[in-house]
Amino acid sequence: MRILFIGDVVGSPGRDMVQEYLPKLKAKYQPHISIVNGENAASGKGITEKIYKNLLEWGANAITMGNHTWDKKDIFQFIDDAPYMVRPGNLPEGTPGNEIVFIKSNGKEIAVINLLGRTFMNPVDDPFRKVEELIEIAKRRTNIIFVDFHAEATSEKLAFGWYIDGKVSAVVGTHTHVQTADDRILPNQTAYISDVGMTGPYDEILGTSKDAVLKKFLTGLPVRFEVPKDGRKQLSAVIIDVDSTTGNASNIERIQINDDHPFFS
Amino acid sequence: MRILFIGDVVGSPGRDMVQEYLPKLKAKYQPHISIVNGENAASGKGITEKIYKNLLEWGANAITMGNHTWDKKDIFQFIDDAPYMVRPGNLPEGTPGNEIVFIKSNGKEIAVINLLGRTFMNPVDDPFRKVEELIEIAKRRTNIIFVDFHAEATSEKLAFGWYIDGKVSAVVGTHTHVQTADDRILPNQTAYISDVGMTGPYDEILGTSKDAVLKKFLTGLPVRFEVPKDGRKQLSAVIIDVDSTTGNASNIERIQINDDHPFFS
Amino acid sequence: MRILFIGDVVGSPGRDMVQEYLPKLKAKYQPHISIVNGENAASGKGITEKIYKNLLEWGANAITMGNHTWDKKDIFQFIDDAPYMVRPGNLPEGTPGNEIVFIKSNGKEIAVINLLGRTFMNPVDDPFRKVEELIEIAKRRTNIIFVDFHAEATSEKLAFGWYIDGKVSAVVGTHTHVQTADDRILPNQTAYISDVGMTGPYDEILGTSKDAVLKKFLTGLPVRFEVPKDGRKQLSAVIIDVDSTTGNASNIERIQINDDHPFFS
Amino acid sequence: MRILFIGDVVGSPGRDMVQEYLPKLKAKYQPHISIVNGENAASGKGITEKIYKNLLEWGANAITMGNHTWDKKDIFQFIDDAPYMVRPGNLPEGTPGNEIVFIKSNGKEIAVINLLGRTFMNPVDDPFRKVEELIEIAKRRTNIIFVDFHAEATSEKLAFGWYIDGKVSAVVGTHTHVQTADDRILPNQTAYISDVGMTGPYDEILGTSKDAVLKKFLTGLPVRFEVPKDGRKQLSAVIIDVDSTTGNASNIERIQINDDHPFFS
Ligand SMILES: [Fe+2]
Ligand SMILES: [Fe+2]
Ligand SMILES: [Fe+2]
Ligand SMILES: [Fe+2]
Ligand SMILES: [Fe+2]
Ligand SMILES: [Fe+2]
Ligand SMILES: [Fe+2]
Ligand SMILES: [Fe+2]
Repeated sequence: MRILFIGDVVGSPGRDMVQEYLPKLKAKYQPHISIVNGENAASGKGITEKIYKNLLEWGANAITMGNHTWDKKDIFQFIDDAPYMVRPGNLPEGTPGNEIVFIKSNGKEIAVINLLGRTFMNPVDDPFRKVEELIEIAKRRTNIIFVDFHAEATSEKLAFGWYIDGKVSAVVGTHTHVQTADDRILPNQTAYISDVGMTGPYDEILGTSKDAVLKKFLTGLPVRFEVPKDGRKQLSAVIIDVDSTTGNASNIERIQINDDHPFFS
Repeated sequence: MRILFIGDVVGSPGRDMVQEYLPKLKAKYQPHISIVNGENAASGKGITEKIYKNLLEWGANAITMGNHTWDKKDIFQFIDDAPYMVRPGNLPEGTPGNEIVFIKSNGKEIAVINLLGRTFMNPVDDPFRKVEELIEIAKRRTNIIFVDFHAEATSEKLAFGWYIDGKVSAVVGTHTHVQTADDRILPNQTAYISDVGMTGPYDEILGTSKDAVLKKFLTGLPVRFEVPKDGRKQLSAVIIDVDSTTGNASNIERIQINDDHPFFS
Repeated sequence: MRILFIGDVVGSPGRDMVQEYLPKLKAKYQPHISIVNGENAASGKGITEKIYKNLLEWGANAITMGNHTWDKKDIFQFIDDAPYMVRPGNLPEGTPGNEIVFIKSNGKEIAVINLLGRTFMNPVDDPFRKVEELIEIAKRRTNIIFVDFHAEATSEKLAFGWYIDGKVSAVVGTHTHVQTADDRILPNQTAYISDVGMTGPYDEILGTSKDAVLKKFLTGLPVRFEVPKDGRKQLSAVIIDVDSTTGNASNIERIQINDDHPFFS
Repeated sequence: MRILFIGDVVGSPGRDMVQEYLPKLKAKYQPHISIVNGENAASGKGITEKIYKNLLEWGANAITMGNHTWDKKDIFQFIDDAPYMVRPGNLPEGTPGNEIVFIKSNGKEIAVINLLGRTFMNPVDDPFRKVEELIEIAKRRTNIIFVDFHAEATSEKLAFGWYIDGKVSAVVGTHTHVQTADDRILPNQTAYISDVGMTGPYDEILGTSKDAVLKKFLTGLPVRFEVPKDGRKQLSAVIIDVDSTTGNASNIERIQINDDHPFFS
């Protein structure tokens, strides 16, 4: 089974890239399942029902989220009727939304899980213990388990990846918006990358207006963080190959689409 | 002019990799200048005079540092007599060591600068203002300016890179110990990468014992963070090509040496 | 010379307390100078020109600020014409507003300084070095120097107080919104308290809606942090006695006005 | 029932104060139960079995801890045989030590609980949910419940206090080492104070060498944080009166013993 995962989609530039390239990536790589991180899909902060549906229409089979899950109020209107959206699993009991989502493909199921890190981030429940609980639930139905670990610190991401090496098919990091070059198959056949990187503006800072971010760093004065709509764009993704029976990963490949790495079909 | 830069060398596994591969990388890529980040070279924390001299013997022309600069007491004995070591420039006035180092090669000079980020790190002076001051000093002697920005957050690293795009030849990030895949030439001809990655153990966490780091995350109990001496190793580096007259960068290339990316001479 | 200082005034409940009790405190304690921290005076976030003028009308001679200085856009319209407002001195060069304000009383001058801490707060310039620079400026005109150190961590506040013990008349902490009971005269005659506490709602959390803050801690979901207008109120302040010639402090006294500590004229 | 609680005992100066004044405080206030926070009792970091036993000998009935619980290795040798020590309850399952301790006095029992905050601190389990679980356990045996909430941020401390107002007899804060002046009986009869303050050196910074802490803030260079043994000392405590049947608190009183607040028997 082949899984395509697209990293944090930021605002309309990010959505444009998904709309344009997700079909092309599917044509080229023939993934069985496509997953998209949508925590920044609406103007850089959160997601709306319309955008959730757009991402599915354009070819996504599941949407993962992150620390920006709740930024758009609209989320509370539809998250409990959004069967293809998985929100971070280590939020307090009673939080709306799915902690795990099962997607079917060719008679096989893949479990999709999303968790938040804690280092340099807001307090949440322990992702290490929570992932074990979710893996147990997943294992009752399938060996193919995909985890989007939304975290800041490389130490926590690597610790998390090594911790569940052999228990899941893939752990891909999101949140820093910069793709890392440490994609590898860990010794017990789990595909790993610290961060897939983001999908959106190519010449801004993490997708947010370069001028605004720079003004913030230089002056500390309040700025409006917006996603510039003009300008060059990028898409960041990974392709992962997994044995449909054992869930073991055999390959992970990084994808970047931007002016320095043009797409070839 | 071609510059080779090797990311955070961690403990004896990291030093072994430098000793073995720096000569081979020089033979292969023919850099005019080789720079090594040595903040973790002594058992993962700091550096000693012996190791500083070793790194130079093995082929380094300059050593940059980071937040671990002062971890080994030995540093205070030799840093003021270490003409090839540059410590972070945005520490308080009166701090021992060089804020800028000039290295000669073929009648040309390269200025080497090292700065610390502040996001998710200890308070230091503003790296944005300090780098402008150091660039001004450098420009009196050379257009070739290399900056090792030792920082945690991708936002600060990218902001810093864009801020001095066109003013320096290269900004390479260090500190997270994970190589990023966002190496590029920014529009005004500055080579950029968010993090070069580390040089040391390949199957541990950032170079530190996987078991210790995991125990810390899982239990919160005290652990000894050590650099395991056995096991597979890696080296992370970049090669940057710079116009000797203008200082403009034309190319940046990532290097990884490990069992998944074997070295070919 | 006697100085009255009122801690962080929060929203309309805080302003009401100043309007009602500042005249009564002046009648009772006869201070020569009254200073008010106004960083939260407008709905808990920032200050407006109207409120700045109100505070002066009600009896304040100088207004200090903090990390919330810029929260209301109005500030940029009047801060450069606000001779009685002092903003944190350790912001980048070029920041609008006064780093030091001199207030006259009975032919004597008092210098009023405001600085931000860095521990658990956003990066700013070193307050330890900056305060020395400002003390030098102040000393050219007066020995009576009042410092509002707006900081979170008790370690940094105490370090700061001990650092300038004997160089200023008083260091009073603000920002945590909770009055500390460590008011004392340090050995070199500087009055010190880690935090004066806040002026505003008595039955909420730091002046902000208890329900909102609790929801945030319990669920992590987004909430609107507002200052409830109804309910019981408090005022927090200190009175400091200073020798008009030497600037040495001889006494510091904590003041709380609330239902558990009613005001007696 | 009257409860005496002594805040963070730091090193030998702190222990000296407990040895000297705990008997005197008992003679003066006649508490039924005396509780001491011992997380810094051994040289400022952690506790040893000998010191644990000393504190009991000198009159303590229970010892609470904090983030420094594990600093001395000795703790692992005796914590599971220390019936009067309660460690933070919101650590991972499987952590050694007691999450709740019941102390008998005059045929009544008091439950003693210790929890860690998360804001500006290391990640631990949610103290809000954990305290509810522990309260439920306690309630099966007694209505008298004492909580030492070891936390940094005033927002979290106040939120926590208001959250369990009416469910416990007292919530006293520790960890900042500075006594706050916000002691009060909350509307539902829970005694509250944000921080009791520390017991140890009077002229240092939080009990640690003033020179070391200042050097750290001024230079960022490594320092040895030690507890100076000479010099003036202080003790910080609270006395709380609780109805033995309902567990409702009727009074909380702050105690400071130092040269500015001498002890009167
Ligand atoms: Fe994101
Ligand atoms: Fe995120
Ligand atoms: Fe490093
Ligand atoms: Fe580092
Ligand atoms: Fe405030
Ligand atoms: Fe503040
Ligand atoms: Fe403590
Ligand atoms: Fe503590």
